[in-house]
Amino acid sequence: MHNRNVKLVIAYDGRCYHGWQRQKKHTTVQGVLEDKISMMAGHPVTLLGSGRTDAGVHAIGQVANFKTSSSISPEAFKKGLNSLLPDDIRIQNAEDVPDDFHSRYDAKSKVYKYQILLSKETDLFRRHYVWHIPWPLNLEKMKTSLSFLVGTHDFSSFRSAGSSNTNPVRDMKLAELSESGNEGIVRLVFEANGFLRHMVRNIVGTVVDVGSGKISVDKFKDICKSGDRRMSGIKAPAQGLFLVKVRY
Amino acid sequence: MHNRNVKLVIAYDGRCYHGWQRQKKHTTVQGVLEDKISMMAGHPVTLLGSGRTDAGVHAIGQVANFKTSSSISPEAFKKGLNSLLPDDIRIQNAEDVPDDFHSRYDAKSKVYKYQILLSKETDLFRRHYVWHIPWPLNLEKMKTSLSFLVGTHDFSSFRSAGSSNTNPVRDMKLAELSESGNEGIVRLVFEANGFLRHMVRNIVGTVVDVGSGKISVDKFKDICKSGDRRMSGIKAPAQGLFLVKVRY
Repeated sequence: MHNRNVKLVIAYDGRCYHGWQRQKKHTTVQGVLEDKISMMAGHPVTLLGSGRTDAGVHAIGQVANFKTSSSISPEAFKKGLNSLLPDDIRIQNAEDVPDDFHSRYDAKSKVYKYQILLSKETDLFRRHYVWHIPWPLNLEKMKTSLSFLVGTHDFSSFRSAGSSNTNPVRDMKLAELSESGNEGIVRLVFEANGFLRHMVRNIVGTVVDVGSGKISVDKFKDICKSGDRRMSGIKAPAQGLFLVKVRY
Repeated sequence: MHNRNVKLVIAYDGRCYHGWQRQKKHTTVQGVLEDKISMMAGHPVTLLGSGRTDAGVHAIGQVANFKTSSSISPEAFKKGLNSLLPDDIRIQNAEDVPDDFHSRYDAKSKVYKYQILLSKETDLFRRHYVWHIPWPLNLEKMKTSLSFLVGTHDFSSFRSAGSSNTNPVRDMKLAELSESGNEGIVRLVFEANGFLRHMVRNIVGTVVDVGSGKISVDKFKDICKSGDRRMSGIKAPAQGLFLVKVRY
């Protein structure tokens, strides 16, 4: 009789985890969270995430929910979990939600951020949170390429093999690039109603190919339309990617 | 016959090291560097640092020099060391300097930075590089307190026991606080012709006591003049401290 539905907003440093989804042999964010929530709730808990994140990908605002019969308040869950959890997983918010709230099905859109460090030397203190690129990039061409992605499109060209989604059409609301002053950081932000497997990292890798001059802006446009993953560029490394927000 | 003197500028993440200075039982930055430089040079090398940093303290621009008979170019030393060193120690620059250059004795001043994260929740991705303070601080009072430190003073009040320096007088050229917009980061920057043991961390701890309202600005002034370490506040944690630059 689990009469409550609790929604969590979770931040994590993906560096030490084999991604979100529980696995038998490896430490995952979902696995660690389910263990600690079960410990507090006093019964086994299944935590339902808004979606998976790959090994090494970070989250600022992952969302998940669980059913429980516990009478522990959301605020006490937050405090208790933050004292039980390792310091690379933090509960940012906890609240009671209606019984039919579903973290995955009810998500209207997700926001991802990808950080590139554009500088000759790497930055020791950010090395786990950026893709370090020591050669110059043409940011204007990258911006133009990103603009082609906005709207409702078939994103098959940027879907990795093994993707289980059948429908490759997504509505991309935002695909923008911004520079942060003298820090050498280039940020790419994406918002869509859903993302295919490795889609952000495949897009970033291909957009970087445009910036590097390996492929032209026109070629990028062709790749988008082709629906052929073999035409697009490399997959950007996991460590630069952050799940920022899930909107409901 | 070590006919060359090579100067290095070194950045490191202090998290995994027992400070700068070589120790028998613990891994230190100097220890790791001396091993790798000796390996490249083909003879045992003694690396002379501009000064020690405590366990857990970071460096953006530590300076050290070593004598060698090797014919390896500075640029090749830099490249070679960066491939041999763990990725939390980076050589930023290497150059030949006159035989009488001495990293410690020739230093005109040093610049330290201390980072405080002022926010209710900690920032997972910066937790190793800030002191997280979840309560409000009066930054204006902290700025006023810092201004008393500028000039030539006896800094005994901020020197930890066990300090080997005999003369506690230092010339503080800069002691400033700045906020960085919406990041919640407060930065304290200090430049002096030298620092006593734990001096920056003791100053920061005491200035935070002023910001928290534990002690008044007038009391802070008294503490500066007292020369009594027992009057001043706690020692700020190591992880927020960075050796930024050594000027010659």
